[in-house]
Amino acid sequence: MSKHWERDLEYLQRSLLQQAATVEETIHKAIRALRQRDDDLARTVIAGDEAVNARENELENECLKMLALHQPVAIELRRVIAALKINNELERMADLSVNVCLRVLESSGQPLPPLPEQLQPMLDLTTAMVRQVLDAFIRLDPRLAWQVIRLDDEVDRSQHEILGGLLPLLQRHPELLPGGLLLLFAVRNLERVADHATNIAEDVIYLVEGEIVRHRKKPG
Amino acid sequence: MSKHWERDLEYLQRSLLQQAATVEETIHKAIRALRQRDDDLARTVIAGDEAVNARENELENECLKMLALHQPVAIELRRVIAALKINNELERMADLSVNVCLRVLESSGQPLPPLPEQLQPMLDLTTAMVRQVLDAFIRLDPRLAWQVIRLDDEVDRSQHEILGGLLPLLQRHPELLPGGLLLLFAVRNLERVADHATNIAEDVIYLVEGEIVRHRKKPG
Repeated sequence: MSKHWERDLEYLQRSLLQQAATVEETIHKAIRALRQRDDDLARTVIAGDEAVNARENELENECLKMLALHQPVAIELRRVIAALKINNELERMADLSVNVCLRVLESSGQPLPPLPEQLQPMLDLTTAMVRQVLDAFIRLDPRLAWQVIRLDDEVDRSQHEILGGLLPLLQRHPELLPGGLLLLFAVRNLERVADHATNIAEDVIYLVEGEIVRHRKKPG
Repeated sequence: MSKHWERDLEYLQRSLLQQAATVEETIHKAIRALRQRDDDLARTVIAGDEAVNARENELENECLKMLALHQPVAIELRRVIAALKINNELERMADLSVNVCLRVLESSGQPLPPLPEQLQPMLDLTTAMVRQVLDAFIRLDPRLAWQVIRLDDEVDRSQHEILGGLLPLLQRHPELLPGGLLLLFAVRNLERVADHATNIAEDVIYLVEGEIVRHRKKPG
């Protein structure tokens, strides 16, 4: 492909990386707003979503422009389609953070149950997946993408452990139920962020190996 | 565009309609498995997901083939991109039903709280949105798409009402908490199906009007 193409592709990748960094920050802030019951921070996250949406629109237009202008085929075509889908996934991750923050505001003042010790590792793991899968996309590295897919199992395990610990606690202390539901909601949304990262990982593998791995068994 | 293009487009649209019909059925079955605590039905839904996934892969390949072969621009390009995204959304709707069924099996035998009276209307509304938005796509009818977006507000309202009714009940009867969480999980997933339908509606409007309406205020 031409020099023009290379330049457009580089711009697209850089924009996706910026979007991913913003989204990662948003996830951290949403969980901080939850654990510190910080309504102001929750409002900041919600207000910041407009910028994420604007960039999503811009990136989608960029992809369509590249398709119409360069008429790519084979791997180049799949690359743009993957970028389109990644763009979509990133915006949804940001939406999940906004959802958590809306709930934080809704349940303002409700006491939270003691935070499960698995929460912080789960948060770190999830945002690491976001970072790693973008790396896999830029470097066209399917090995890295498979790693992300495997990390998703750990996130699922954390979610189960947290639920298993909270349930008996909430049964003993029904007065903590509203705060407990908020916590469960946030944990579930973190798990969905990990799912979105997994979706991207599957697209990266498809991009490089030209085969749809989605819904297939994971190797090793 | 050529006759070939028309034929490919028609095949694509028909396949999407079939997929949407399957997904709709899956949603109904998942909720029936929940309310009747029917583990066999839950297992049937889970097993049926493979066919949905296979069709998703097939449709994605179809879209890529159309892009590479016909090199469409303008509205035709956007049409294929919209189909790609709709294909994605439909598969995720089916995944949500599978998630509900997995939880039904996990919590097998746990008593459910009395079913909220808003559940059935919420289910009907949600699956109507799925049907209507595919119609909007095939007929390129943005008015119909806007209707779907407006219905989403009703679904959100139902979800809030159900949550508001369940919370005090579960506080009085902590023994119902496991079943109550299952119910809340199912309701939340229904609401997400409606969100996916809304995403498609936004894509249809973009497709016809050439402008990204996502994240904009709704008219009227």
